[in-house]
Amino acid sequence: MQSLKFYQASFEVRTRGRGSLQVTDTLQQHVAGSGISQGLCHVFLHHTSASLVLCENADPAVRTDMERFMLRLAPDGDPLFEHVAEGPDDMPAHIRTLLTHTDLTLPVGNGHCSLGTWQGVYLWEHRQQGHRRQITVSVTGV
Amino acid sequence: MQSLKFYQASFEVRTRGRGSLQVTDTLQQHVAGSGISQGLCHVFLHHTSASLVLCENADPAVRTDMERFMLRLAPDGDPLFEHVAEGPDDMPAHIRTLLTHTDLTLPVGNGHCSLGTWQGVYLWEHRQQGHRRQITVSVTGV
Amino acid sequence: MQSLKFYQASFEVRTRGRGSLQVTDTLQQHVAGSGISQGLCHVFLHHTSASLVLCENADPAVRTDMERFMLRLAPDGDPLFEHVAEGPDDMPAHIRTLLTHTDLTLPVGNGHCSLGTWQGVYLWEHRQQGHRRQITVSVTGV
Repeated sequence: MQSLKFYQASFEVRTRGRGSLQVTDTLQQHVAGSGISQGLCHVFLHHTSASLVLCENADPAVRTDMERFMLRLAPDGDPLFEHVAEGPDDMPAHIRTLLTHTDLTLPVGNGHCSLGTWQGVYLWEHRQQGHRRQITVSVTGV
Repeated sequence: MQSLKFYQASFEVRTRGRGSLQVTDTLQQHVAGSGISQGLCHVFLHHTSASLVLCENADPAVRTDMERFMLRLAPDGDPLFEHVAEGPDDMPAHIRTLLTHTDLTLPVGNGHCSLGTWQGVYLWEHRQQGHRRQITVSVTGV
Repeated sequence: MQSLKFYQASFEVRTRGRGSLQVTDTLQQHVAGSGISQGLCHVFLHHTSASLVLCENADPAVRTDMERFMLRLAPDGDPLFEHVAEGPDDMPAHIRTLLTHTDLTLPVGNGHCSLGTWQGVYLWEHRQQGHRRQITVSVTGV
């Protein structure tokens, strides 16, 4: 039996304010670099005002519709919220994170993440201003 | 010390339009077949218009209430959405996926997924028409 | 090459009705006790009326704002719901669980969960009454 291997690395993404950036290619490079052919790839975002989401990677309108949906559900400046320390987009950013994902685990096969045809991994910045966002990738497998 | 083992397999589920189908038994069969007694079972859905959810497995009304809730939150034909390429249920299906889960990880003990008494794993189809949905199961452990 | 190790344990948390309790310290103790220095920590909640969430750990108003948001989105006694077997907070508790998380996976480095500065792991009780909630922690790594 082959022994399981483990790989872990971190990288930073600079966002330019609210919006989503695809990180699939960076993840695939880490998986390739890990030398692991079959296993799992775990992705973790070290923040509470941005998300990691798996979404449709073909029509950019999907991602603008996601923004519109969230703006309706938890609008900036919503009088419901008491936590406004960093401005009107502070608590809505936490709500968006809560309702989506901070970590994803993806299957690895043939040395890369086996995503569906229309699946891309996106870092979704929820704050109005750009931030440096830290991501940790961990790959386990054979 | 015992060496960790890794098992991975894919299977397909045919859905018959919007609604949820329990897949717990299929997962338990894969875990049993893996020969792994204690560890983790990861389940991944290769699509962006359907979800994997852990929910109450006793009263079917829970799952019809989930549908009603989502219909109110992101109705088909919602004028908010620009992405309507595949019809009025296209973008609402992506929103439902975004707000729920594409991957789940479950603890394995005594050779099966150690779910709570009322927890079942469901594939939730969000499109009006039936689809073939691919799921990958990965089991890691001893 | 170092062999991968696996650790698994369960613990119980008594909640005192709706609200969130931080469990980060308990997780860190399990990771320390596992003797694993680098890897992944998986946390699983065996229930469908409570959640595990990663959220801002500094200002308690974040967590009261989360409650207010959920109360607006899926109010207790919402006439939309048919599943009211255990009272007006029964189905809203399932909806809150569905929209948040039942399992989280966190990176482990230097013998502890490598969370961001503002990230804490919370058990979020969604029922009005207190419950005993079972959590299973699994740590994999070197």
